[in-house]
Amino acid sequence: MPDRLRVAVLGCGSVGSQVVRLLDEQADDLAARVGAPVELAGVAVRRLEAPREVEVPDGLLTTDATALVTRDDVDLVIEVIGGIEPARSLILAALESGKSVVTANKALLAEDGPTLFEAAEKVGRDLYYEAAVAGAIPILRPLRESLAGDRVTRVLGIVNGTTNFILDRMDTSGAGFTEALEEAQELGYAEADPTADVEGFDAAAKAAILASLAFHSRVTANDVHREGISDVTAADVASARDMNSVVKLLAICELRDGVGGDDAVSVRVHPAMIPRSHPLASVREAYNAVFVESEAAGQLMFYGPGAGGAPTASAVLGDLVTVARNRLADTRGAGESAYADRAVLPMGETVTRYHVAIDVDDRAGVLASVATAFAEHGVSIQTVRQEGRGADAQLVVVSHESTDAQLAATVETLRGMPAVREVTSVMRVEGVAE
Amino acid sequence: MPDRLRVAVLGCGSVGSQVVRLLDEQADDLAARVGAPVELAGVAVRRLEAPREVEVPDGLLTTDATALVTRDDVDLVIEVIGGIEPARSLILAALESGKSVVTANKALLAEDGPTLFEAAEKVGRDLYYEAAVAGAIPILRPLRESLAGDRVTRVLGIVNGTTNFILDRMDTSGAGFTEALEEAQELGYAEADPTADVEGFDAAAKAAILASLAFHSRVTANDVHREGISDVTAADVASARDMNSVVKLLAICELRDGVGGDDAVSVRVHPAMIPRSHPLASVREAYNAVFVESEAAGQLMFYGPGAGGAPTASAVLGDLVTVARNRLADTRGAGESAYADRAVLPMGETVTRYHVAIDVDDRAGVLASVATAFAEHGVSIQTVRQEGRGADAQLVVVSHESTDAQLAATVETLRGMPAVREVTSVMRVEGVAE
Repeated sequence: MPDRLRVAVLGCGSVGSQVVRLLDEQADDLAARVGAPVELAGVAVRRLEAPREVEVPDGLLTTDATALVTRDDVDLVIEVIGGIEPARSLILAALESGKSVVTANKALLAEDGPTLFEAAEKVGRDLYYEAAVAGAIPILRPLRESLAGDRVTRVLGIVNGTTNFILDRMDTSGAGFTEALEEAQELGYAEADPTADVEGFDAAAKAAILASLAFHSRVTANDVHREGISDVTAADVASARDMNSVVKLLAICELRDGVGGDDAVSVRVHPAMIPRSHPLASVREAYNAVFVESEAAGQLMFYGPGAGGAPTASAVLGDLVTVARNRLADTRGAGESAYADRAVLPMGETVTRYHVAIDVDDRAGVLASVATAFAEHGVSIQTVRQEGRGADAQLVVVSHESTDAQLAATVETLRGMPAVREVTSVMRVEGVAE
Repeated sequence: MPDRLRVAVLGCGSVGSQVVRLLDEQADDLAARVGAPVELAGVAVRRLEAPREVEVPDGLLTTDATALVTRDDVDLVIEVIGGIEPARSLILAALESGKSVVTANKALLAEDGPTLFEAAEKVGRDLYYEAAVAGAIPILRPLRESLAGDRVTRVLGIVNGTTNFILDRMDTSGAGFTEALEEAQELGYAEADPTADVEGFDAAAKAAILASLAFHSRVTANDVHREGISDVTAADVASARDMNSVVKLLAICELRDGVGGDDAVSVRVHPAMIPRSHPLASVREAYNAVFVESEAAGQLMFYGPGAGGAPTASAVLGDLVTVARNRLADTRGAGESAYADRAVLPMGETVTRYHVAIDVDDRAGVLASVATAFAEHGVSIQTVRQEGRGADAQLVVVSHESTDAQLAATVETLRGMPAVREVTSVMRVEGVAE
């Protein structure tokens, strides 16, 4: 049993530098909580001379990450480089040489998690990754451990701060997407190339991780149906407001009936209207929150900062304490749990609800023909609101639950109808009891 | 290593019966998550014939709890009897005979936790108790593990559903305390004798447990300053509403400067005004939530059902899976962490803020004399609002931070002043940045 634990940190950007700072500042507390001192063994960076938020002690910086993670005197490795390579090779090299690993790398876990989990399993070491989803918010550990005696049926997450900031601005100021995005960029909430955030790639990676843990199955980023927010218009947001609802980009993971009566997993990222009374509706600005429904516990919500150097570093160090304790006790925590091996439903077979706003001619029979279009596709209507506006009228229809394929086909039919001037808003509806 | 784990359940009331039900219904999932079958070995009850919510298999009911917890073929014990005795003796007997224990017993942990923790430590077994605070909401595990690499500075909890229901009714309907309590009793949210809830005993036990974990120190129920809600008036609630605030019964655990510059712990339960913009303000009806502030993670909130048989059973079974895994791996989770050994501040030395509403004579010089009373006790005023009402006027004063002793002395002085007709509302203010 080692009398101290030595840590290698890969990457010294906004998260890595906070990890290095906290390892130093909290050293006494970390030692007391782990049961042995935790020391910084080295920090791997791309360039030695780059400006950094933290001063790394002399001689600890290196550009040879592979040598660092395989050093005999290193026990634990923290990977906060991000991206697929070289992160994957370094994590695999670390595990293969017997290190325990903590990572914040959502993209890698969502793309190739099973390869990493199997490598950890093989050597009997830990691979922990709380920081990969929703920053500082403890959500993976509660899903994996606190709810291990329960049956999780749904996870709804606001897991991307950039898009939540943009949608919140559109809601509060009436701004369009482009204007709100520019404001987010000016304030540092969005990157110069915002694609990964606004097109939902970041949220989709997190959805895959959440669904895997919640449903004890392997779900990768490729399994996630993904729609971003760049097509959300001021009209959509206004229409939501009229319904006393708000538009959020949601990561949705649900247990649904699959083929042959087996449970299947629906996992998707798309903008959706949720009622303002839903706990997720009050998540403002760049905050994140994850709403969990389970059979026995009922409805739970976890809320907090979803990004940022210090919050993410807090999650990394929480994991570090656990893997360090396990290392001292020569044991490991729970590994991957994929025993349920549930199928992922195609989006078309996923059951959801649509909100559709349509500009129509204001004459008798239009409502009947619109209602017929829904009925022809087997979609039942929950509410219709009609508002006359001079020569034309607006119809707002909210459907009951139906498959996404039926709902999408209904919208196609509507678009082709002579009485329909324009379908002005199509948005899924979530967070409402059917 | 056992090839299956056998569980004894002590108590078969609303929580115990749900535990027994879930052990049966989720048996396959529990086996997969633990790595071995988990079987019910027996259920200890006071009377064999009492009506129950669940059917216990033949031969498993017993009235001899001591014999059950010391049986050689029992590996894990779940205690959901509640109260101090016989729960304490049974848990100690279970630990001494090498069982791991899961309990939901907040009163016992808050009164005599260290005795139990030491017994668990001595035999190298687990004692887990997530269900003891805030029912199904995962809060103890996040504090103990997820935030183990961070420095928690404050915990604000709505941890008693009965009092939150009553205060929420007073806020939404304008009802007085007695009327709201009667409604809570009719709906089953309050017991016939509501003392433990409305006088804050239940919340104080939970505050002691939260403070112990958050600050790595031993805090017992006796250390907790406790004030209930039976003196909260409709006038207090209305005064809060005028401030765009709401009255909540809060369990407050803070790290504060103590004697000699060491950190000390302030731990208290009392009604307080919080702004409606605070995340805790929107916690309605009988829901619970715990708001955590830490140095690196920032502000986190955990929300969900704080009581009820099934939610509490979910938390118990989450712990059961962990202690069962540990038992299979012949290891144990983190035990008590009290290394920081921080002192508990007396209430008088605790720094807080007061909201005071006063009926005064409406004449020149009254505001000056009231302001002088605050100044004489060294209390700085943040805001004063004055409203004339015929011959008299109402002053509403919100102080800056001061010690509770100075603030209480100020109120005493105000009560004795000739110009003051009545101090109509005194309430602490929380959740506001100073």
